[in-house]
Amino acid sequence: MIRAVEWKEGRVRILDQTKLPGETTYIDCEKVEQVAQAIRDLCVRGAPAIGITAAYGMALAAQTSALSSPSLFQKEIEEAGALLAATRPTAINLFTAINRMKKIMEDQKGHPIPSQRRALLAEANAILNEDIDANRTIGRLGSALIAFGDGILTYCNTGALATGGYGTALGIIRSAWEQEKRIAVYVCETRPVLQGARLTAWELHREKIPVVLITDSMAGTIMRLGKIRRCIVGADRIATNGDVANKIGTYTIAVLAREHNIPFYVAAPTSTIDLGIASGDQIPIEERDRSEVTDIGGKTFAPEGVAVSNLAFDITPAEYIQAIITEKGIFRPDQIQGLKPSV
Amino acid sequence: MIRAVEWKEGRVRILDQTKLPGETTYIDCEKVEQVAQAIRDLCVRGAPAIGITAAYGMALAAQTSALSSPSLFQKEIEEAGALLAATRPTAINLFTAINRMKKIMEDQKGHPIPSQRRALLAEANAILNEDIDANRTIGRLGSALIAFGDGILTYCNTGALATGGYGTALGIIRSAWEQEKRIAVYVCETRPVLQGARLTAWELHREKIPVVLITDSMAGTIMRLGKIRRCIVGADRIATNGDVANKIGTYTIAVLAREHNIPFYVAAPTSTIDLGIASGDQIPIEERDRSEVTDIGGKTFAPEGVAVSNLAFDITPAEYIQAIITEKGIFRPDQIQGLKPSV
Repeated sequence: MIRAVEWKEGRVRILDQTKLPGETTYIDCEKVEQVAQAIRDLCVRGAPAIGITAAYGMALAAQTSALSSPSLFQKEIEEAGALLAATRPTAINLFTAINRMKKIMEDQKGHPIPSQRRALLAEANAILNEDIDANRTIGRLGSALIAFGDGILTYCNTGALATGGYGTALGIIRSAWEQEKRIAVYVCETRPVLQGARLTAWELHREKIPVVLITDSMAGTIMRLGKIRRCIVGADRIATNGDVANKIGTYTIAVLAREHNIPFYVAAPTSTIDLGIASGDQIPIEERDRSEVTDIGGKTFAPEGVAVSNLAFDITPAEYIQAIITEKGIFRPDQIQGLKPSV
Repeated sequence: MIRAVEWKEGRVRILDQTKLPGETTYIDCEKVEQVAQAIRDLCVRGAPAIGITAAYGMALAAQTSALSSPSLFQKEIEEAGALLAATRPTAINLFTAINRMKKIMEDQKGHPIPSQRRALLAEANAILNEDIDANRTIGRLGSALIAFGDGILTYCNTGALATGGYGTALGIIRSAWEQEKRIAVYVCETRPVLQGARLTAWELHREKIPVVLITDSMAGTIMRLGKIRRCIVGADRIATNGDVANKIGTYTIAVLAREHNIPFYVAAPTSTIDLGIASGDQIPIEERDRSEVTDIGGKTFAPEGVAVSNLAFDITPAEYIQAIITEKGIFRPDQIQGLKPSV
């Protein structure tokens, strides 16, 4: 399975997803600033994957620090955490991972620096491995909701590239495929950044899982033509009331699914749940640069100077969601509030 | 007002819309084959505009024919009509225009060739001018449905570029703007061919009508955020029961509009109505080349060999449509069946 991010010889190796599927190139980060830039530039994306990357970013800052005073050393790692936390606002996993790393620093206060370095790297590895485990469990649990021969619509990328490995929504699809359920996957290209076309279609096609690429504008008609029996998407943050923030366009898919009586599922590890906020309306929505809308592949398609809206995420209210599939079980959105926070 | 197509010095001059908004270049067609190719390649598109172009294509065939036998001459023009009719299947205006030209040939049977040439060119000019008149009337009538300060969502391009001039849905927007209704227009980019980003945003921006460009995936959220008070789109064919074929993605907008209690209007000249068919399910839907989905601006974004669906149009059932705005008045979809056919 392809890895979005890994710790390699004292560096953070990030697969540059902006170049996929044309080129498979890696960024070997030697400094935390490079890690932060890679997150900002979407070289690595997907809520779980950016959490893992941020954790490794802090481990990298610990590794590369030249300071010998444990308290100044801790201050430097904290600043690295703040830098990483400022990269993207919506996915909660980023903050959850950074907070876990901060807790390790708390525990390690006063310990010698080499011990702190080891503990921070061990925690980043744990975050990665727990995510892979969670994905496998989500895949196994969620595949029970998939029937033989189902047409499944998915959106954006929730695969190995968006997580520690295997994937959330795509993990369920992989698991159903491994169970020989003969599914057919329709993937929306997911404008503006085309994660569906570039990443999800690529992940599925290379594993020979049947996939049909459509533009986002075709989703309604594909449903109306009776091709889709389930929709499964990922999440960047889940509020206490079960509202879900996910890639812009998810809400439209949810509305279309309800209109066609198609179950709409969200697959995400519990690290994506934010019990600190009551509803989706409180989730900060990142607005990204206008060029993502006006330009594609370096070419400009919109008239110069035209106004653009580029909300990177949207909120799907809980009422549109049949089930939230986590590693702790499958829940109705109204059951999310009863879950214990992971950290 | 910019012209999509015009008769110029014995040639058919077509604005190459595939190059907009970057370049304003024209194709001066000297043969009907070039006209057919320009329609196939979307250099000219939009249901009314391709009807007008086809009419001029037949006038051009008449102009350039070297035959001196009136019956062989007529056969050549008929073949030109058949060539043009085979370019695109969905928009009825193409066939309506060709049928009008054929009727002229019928009337002219036995007349000398110069007379036939004049009559055919006069009919093509009439088709153009009637369309411009219809657009102006649609704009005037439809603008009565627009309130001061409305946020209006439109889709694809229904402007001067899609018609003889002025536009259908965009004609209403122009008319409301001329009436100083202080509207704000949101336009979906309209994948795969980006007519919204390239053409509609361009037409509105150059006339200083406030426009915000969004990806198709943002339409649901823009509605949920309360920015939209009306949706207005065009049509490629309207069935007897009021079902509407229009650019792929229109149906999704209609579903979203109903979910948010936003009126959804279709603006089209009566030449777009096809009383020969009962419902939308009988409208032939063009499927275009996969490269429109996989490639953007000459660059490939999808993995090689992946399956693609590229339906160019969709059907919006009558139940989603509040009003169909024509030059003969504003109708509920169930009133379409009572309209007399134009030809």
